[in-house]
Amino acid sequence: MPFQHRIYNFAPGPATLPEEVLEAAGKDMLLWQGLGAGVMEVSHRSPAFMNCYQDALQNLIDLMKIPSNYKVLFLQGGAIGQNAAIPMNLMKLAKSGPQADFIVSGVWTQKSVAEASKYGTARIAATSKDQHFHCVPDRSTWDLSPDSAYVHICDNETVGGVEFSQTPDVGNTPLVADISSNILSREIDVSRYGVLFAGAQKNIGPAGVTIVIVREDLIGHAMPITPTIWDWQVQANNDSMINTPTTFAIYMAGEVFKWLKKSGGVTQMEKLNQQKSQLLYEVLDQSSLYEGRVHKDSRSRMNVTFYLRDESLFEAFLKQASDAGMTGLKGHKSVGGMRASIYNAMPLEGVQCLAQFMREFERRA
Amino acid sequence: MPFQHRIYNFAPGPATLPEEVLEAAGKDMLLWQGLGAGVMEVSHRSPAFMNCYQDALQNLIDLMKIPSNYKVLFLQGGAIGQNAAIPMNLMKLAKSGPQADFIVSGVWTQKSVAEASKYGTARIAATSKDQHFHCVPDRSTWDLSPDSAYVHICDNETVGGVEFSQTPDVGNTPLVADISSNILSREIDVSRYGVLFAGAQKNIGPAGVTIVIVREDLIGHAMPITPTIWDWQVQANNDSMINTPTTFAIYMAGEVFKWLKKSGGVTQMEKLNQQKSQLLYEVLDQSSLYEGRVHKDSRSRMNVTFYLRDESLFEAFLKQASDAGMTGLKGHKSVGGMRASIYNAMPLEGVQCLAQFMREFERRA
Repeated sequence: MPFQHRIYNFAPGPATLPEEVLEAAGKDMLLWQGLGAGVMEVSHRSPAFMNCYQDALQNLIDLMKIPSNYKVLFLQGGAIGQNAAIPMNLMKLAKSGPQADFIVSGVWTQKSVAEASKYGTARIAATSKDQHFHCVPDRSTWDLSPDSAYVHICDNETVGGVEFSQTPDVGNTPLVADISSNILSREIDVSRYGVLFAGAQKNIGPAGVTIVIVREDLIGHAMPITPTIWDWQVQANNDSMINTPTTFAIYMAGEVFKWLKKSGGVTQMEKLNQQKSQLLYEVLDQSSLYEGRVHKDSRSRMNVTFYLRDESLFEAFLKQASDAGMTGLKGHKSVGGMRASIYNAMPLEGVQCLAQFMREFERRA
Repeated sequence: MPFQHRIYNFAPGPATLPEEVLEAAGKDMLLWQGLGAGVMEVSHRSPAFMNCYQDALQNLIDLMKIPSNYKVLFLQGGAIGQNAAIPMNLMKLAKSGPQADFIVSGVWTQKSVAEASKYGTARIAATSKDQHFHCVPDRSTWDLSPDSAYVHICDNETVGGVEFSQTPDVGNTPLVADISSNILSREIDVSRYGVLFAGAQKNIGPAGVTIVIVREDLIGHAMPITPTIWDWQVQANNDSMINTPTTFAIYMAGEVFKWLKKSGGVTQMEKLNQQKSQLLYEVLDQSSLYEGRVHKDSRSRMNVTFYLRDESLFEAFLKQASDAGMTGLKGHKSVGGMRASIYNAMPLEGVQCLAQFMREFERRA
């Protein structure tokens, strides 16, 4: 460092974005769509921005094949905000007092439980805590309650690098999934979920917009204490513009959606993400230096976590990786180790480069 | 239209930004601070972003002369979000049950009352509704309750163009002021307020960050139902980073703060804003076509609202203004008429241009 060129940035979020999207944004900074003003300076009620918003919305619907009985909201406050908003919007649906079930697979679902507890009973229906959150709790262990309004999962735990390999069956209870770190990374059947939500700053765009995809029958049940900006009914009735939305973040998300469509859509991303993560897991599986602790059937294709069996090499690994133009590899402080976040915008070449570096580092060690 | 050059954008928010800030942002899109990544792609926990955040914070403290017994938070959800967060954080301080007083001077304080009512008693201590919100309620009419936790005002009502000409005296009760549309536009004595809050998208930067300035003794009284991202205590203890903040919006706000310092700070802005608004009010006062309805002692220096006595000229006015390179002049749909929003980033030349256009339009009419 310092770098005069773009490097491979493996940060967990905010994370790397497609270069051509950033270039377009740079150009739209001062002048956008012939309006004589930049994209950030234009009213959210203007025809130009409303078109931008509608395009972003439609492209997301196309990319994820979102059925017509779902509403897509662009909100503020991140996934942690929705951790409060979801119980406020849904817990009233429980038969005997506000209650929901949680499948705890790591740091993020722990946070979700704590937040939901403010609004009702947050039941831990299953947890992999005894397995150090190195896997998703096995479906056979789930103790779901018929009195719960919904079942909450985190589809991909960014910190641990633990991901559901398939959509779990929870019967007729609405399934609520935090897909902050794997939205648009693989094909999912939206109709099997009641609510999908995601902060944008991992697989989509800059921090500042939170996407909530909610089945229509789950809208309209908000507790009276729900802040208006998180009342799904109010926002669904107002194009998510009950107050000024984060226009630039929505614009950026829209540009990323266009880039995804051009790049082959979610089908192509899924193939690439499979290939990218496989490259790194192969290194781990063939190594006597690197240790991947996540169970094979719960391995994340987005956040590949690993440890060095010789911890004294920790700083050398990070330093040499950085010298070779690869940053953001330090694991989350709560678990230590390393983490390579390889979202959609991380090209295959970046992961090949990292895999090669890891092999050479081990050879030299 | 379409314009190939920057024009004068009088939009109420998102609003015009300083050209040199936008140019800097354009350059930082792909490569920032030698990190090999753009400003939006960098972790909020990285030293580079933490420095950026600390600089923004310190520059805001300097610009507003914020005393050391105040905390400055950079949150999400806009002023409408804080309309919920403020009662949740403060209403418990009331002596006999959650309660606060509101001085209703327009659309925004009406919204504040509605939102606060979800969490306790929102008393309308004064209102200028009978004066069609063409003025701030006269201080002599305020019926403040000793049982209220705080008094809420909107220092500048963007829709009506109504602004407090001075800080009202409310005794020892904490004064809470929404300064979304006039933050940093004139010198204020922060020590006379308990809480100041502002969405950034009018006088600061892009939509997406909400600034909350709160006296330390008012922190730590949140209701148990307060969402974590809005619990001032939690956010104050965590550099406003209990979840991923809107890093790009904070970066942009920081760039605007630097531009303000270079441009002479708030003292200079106050002079300019006085001069700018005076130019337009003079046109209104000397006109038989334009009608300013806001009482002289409540005239906003940020949003100059006016009507055309001959309503048939409405579209022609907007069209000819746009042809002359001035946009965003249509008033809020709830009140009609025209509105020129002339925040800090609107140069004197832009206002001179508008004043001249208005005079010429009247001459031709």
